[in-house]
Amino acid sequence: MGTDEMLAVAVREARTGLASGGIPVGAALFGPDGDLWGSGHNRRVQDDDPTIHGETAAFRAAGRRRSYRGTTMVTTLSPCWYCSGLIRQFGITAVLIGESHTFTGGHDWLAAHGTTITILNDPECVDMMTTFISTHPTLWSEDIGD
Amino acid sequence: MGTDEMLAVAVREARTGLASGGIPVGAALFGPDGDLWGSGHNRRVQDDDPTIHGETAAFRAAGRRRSYRGTTMVTTLSPCWYCSGLIRQFGITAVLIGESHTFTGGHDWLAAHGTTITILNDPECVDMMTTFISTHPTLWSEDIGD
Repeated sequence: MGTDEMLAVAVREARTGLASGGIPVGAALFGPDGDLWGSGHNRRVQDDDPTIHGETAAFRAAGRRRSYRGTTMVTTLSPCWYCSGLIRQFGITAVLIGESHTFTGGHDWLAAHGTTITILNDPECVDMMTTFISTHPTLWSEDIGD
Repeated sequence: MGTDEMLAVAVREARTGLASGGIPVGAALFGPDGDLWGSGHNRRVQDDDPTIHGETAAFRAAGRRRSYRGTTMVTTLSPCWYCSGLIRQFGITAVLIGESHTFTGGHDWLAAHGTTITILNDPECVDMMTTFISTHPTLWSEDIGD
C-alpha cells in the first residue's frame, strides 16, 4: 500500500469523526507487512473522552501487541505531545503525517529520537483542519490544552 | 490534602488494579483547589486496552476540562513517554511520583519544560512494582513497549 492509500484511511476516519460532530483528526496503524492493524478518530466530543485522539484511537483499535517494530502510524495531523509520547514509548517505527501546517506537535522530537517522519503536506488535510479550527476554535483549543 | 494522602489515592488505584489481575500502576488528578478530579489504574489486561495507563485513566476519569492550570497528577510510578506527553500537552502543572526506581520515564524532560516534579521514593510503591515486574516480566515489557 502506498502512502496515498495509507493517508486515505486516516482521512476517511477524520471525515467520519467530523460527520458525527467531532474533531476531524484520524489515524491508522499499519503492521510491518503493511496490513492495517487498526484505525480511529478523535472522540472527545462523541464519547466525552479527552484521551481519544486520532492516534490513540488507532493504537487502541490495534489491540494488545508485543512489538511495534516496523509499524507505521498514519495521521491526518502532526501528532501532539501526547500522541508523540505514545509513538516514542512503543517504538512505532515510522509516522506519515497528512499536514503540520495548522498544528505542529512533537514530530521533530520524534525524528531526533529515531522515528522516520514523513510530512505529506496534503491539501485536503490542511483544508479540513483550517475550516474546523476557524469554525470551532474553542473546541480545538480544548483538545490541545491550549 | 498533603502529598501522602494524594499518593494514597494513587496507591489504592494500583492495588485495585493488581487485585483484578492487572498492572499495578495507579494515578489521580487533583484540581487547583486540591479536589479530586479523577483517578484510575492501568487496564491493559482488564480491558485488553493498551492505551489505558494509570495516568491516562485518571485523566479520562476527570472528564473534559477547559484548562489544567494548577492541577497535580499523582502517580505511583514515573510516567512513561506516553503519559509524560499527556502531561506536557495539557499543561498539567505538577506531578507527584511514587517512585522512579523500577522504571524511569519522561519526568526529567517534563521538569525541563516547566512541570514541577516531586519524586517521593515511596517504599510501598517500589515494593509493589519490584514484585510485579519479577513475577510478570513479559506483561510489564508489553506495557512499556520494551
